[in-house]
Amino acid sequence: MRALRVTDTGTKLVDVPIPDADGEVLVRVTLSGICNTDLELARGYMGFRGTLGHELVGVTADGTRVVCEINAGCGTCALCQTGDSRHCPTRTVMGIVGRDGAHADYLRMPARNLIAVPDHITDRQAVFVEPLAAALGVIERCPIQPNDRVAIIGDGKLGLLIAMALADLRPVLVGKHPHKMALAPVEGVLAADARGTTFDIVIEASGTADGFTLALDLLRPQGSLVLKSTFAGSTPVDAARIVVDEIRVIGSRCGRFAPALARLPHVNVDRLVSDQMSIDRAEQALEDAGKPGVLKLLLER
Amino acid sequence: MRALRVTDTGTKLVDVPIPDADGEVLVRVTLSGICNTDLELARGYMGFRGTLGHELVGVTADGTRVVCEINAGCGTCALCQTGDSRHCPTRTVMGIVGRDGAHADYLRMPARNLIAVPDHITDRQAVFVEPLAAALGVIERCPIQPNDRVAIIGDGKLGLLIAMALADLRPVLVGKHPHKMALAPVEGVLAADARGTTFDIVIEASGTADGFTLALDLLRPQGSLVLKSTFAGSTPVDAARIVVDEIRVIGSRCGRFAPALARLPHVNVDRLVSDQMSIDRAEQALEDAGKPGVLKLLLER
Repeated sequence: MRALRVTDTGTKLVDVPIPDADGEVLVRVTLSGICNTDLELARGYMGFRGTLGHELVGVTADGTRVVCEINAGCGTCALCQTGDSRHCPTRTVMGIVGRDGAHADYLRMPARNLIAVPDHITDRQAVFVEPLAAALGVIERCPIQPNDRVAIIGDGKLGLLIAMALADLRPVLVGKHPHKMALAPVEGVLAADARGTTFDIVIEASGTADGFTLALDLLRPQGSLVLKSTFAGSTPVDAARIVVDEIRVIGSRCGRFAPALARLPHVNVDRLVSDQMSIDRAEQALEDAGKPGVLKLLLER
Repeated sequence: MRALRVTDTGTKLVDVPIPDADGEVLVRVTLSGICNTDLELARGYMGFRGTLGHELVGVTADGTRVVCEINAGCGTCALCQTGDSRHCPTRTVMGIVGRDGAHADYLRMPARNLIAVPDHITDRQAVFVEPLAAALGVIERCPIQPNDRVAIIGDGKLGLLIAMALADLRPVLVGKHPHKMALAPVEGVLAADARGTTFDIVIEASGTADGFTLALDLLRPQGSLVLKSTFAGSTPVDAARIVVDEIRVIGSRCGRFAPALARLPHVNVDRLVSDQMSIDRAEQALEDAGKPGVLKLLLER
């Protein structure tokens, strides 16, 4: 089968055997989405080796259309026993930590990670369930009240998806590209124009040190900064500002799939698709995904 | 009068006029304490110019013994109207921001900042009310449950005072100097021995980048890191760890004086005093305060 793999000599589309189910469930991938984390992993983040991809919709041997939660826990630790494997200390993570991912013709995942996709959700919607769950994970970690003033920094695909997911809370999207910000049904402002306004909660989705600094500039004292993007390397942080202004910095990674599936039909994720192409063009797609202005690229089989 | 002042040419004990009350209250300082923030300010932190010192006990013209909340708010903004000037955007801060401090014979503060000291509290205890309030400020920003496993990083005077203030919560004090850690009525462990244990809450009171990294090492996923020390410059932070482990980083600065005054008689602050000397020796004291092993130095009049 075809698989887009990070190797010691680069990231390549290669031919590999279809995996054995080996006690898990074999899923034939229909559609997979390229995430910025794939780009970071290809550049060496976390030292990952293996098949990339953690956004997919696929079909099991019995014909069930499924999406797959990406964290595969041990199943026996205290965290896994509560039904939440996202922080199991010995977890593997699809296409990210110790487990092959979704940019392939097939992948295997534990049965408990599979969730059936309702008929009224299209494949092109379903492939967004993982990033939408991550976007909704913001409010799981940082509850937002109706009167809170909320800003989202970053008009890349993550920032846009968070803006779409949280549109009911009337956030302000702070970005650099008016034509991208216009894709989300919220107010979009340029960073320079946002200064002078203060927010109760700022969600950093640009994954840059500048975005972090801007977030501190926009927050009121004792406000909350939700840190959403993972990226390699260390960021210089003015820790004194966090102390003096008594800011809360809240890390947020993965969300839950069930609420995201329920929400999918109400979020216009189609707007975020820049292109859909055959997995045969995966290497080029990975390169294109990092170019300015490119949003979600989908790989079909 | 004598005053220890940060000037463009260094920090010096100089002779200056006694200030006019100018609508505020003149306080004759009896005893003042040197804080690490004084050392940072003398090194240029926040560009402060003026008289240092924000830990004191003194006497008003009518003979009342007082301590003084250090944040002087505008009195009219929404924050000040709630009775909490700690984040008033136009506040001055005694000996820190735009207002002369306590290492002098006299200082002036707004009447609403003065709190009378009960007779059963000695001057040597009362001078600790500001740092004890800051120590108790940790639980104001980050409520701690009885079953939470708590670590405090740093066995300097701030870390020791936090350990004393929160002793009922049975925290572990992580430091480098067993003889210093022994001053607090809690379990003290060396950093190397603390590794392998995980904590629900880690309070960073060392003010170093190493302390921050160690705090992340000791925290469980979704744990809370309380950042307590202010220091100049930026700290390299592995932001991806905050996101991946979904850590909460909570800045904590000043506390409230009333609960700290009530608590003072039950905290053995005397143990933290390395020396008490005349304010005439203030320049030497400021230098000594930065030396290894020196805890609180007090300046008497």
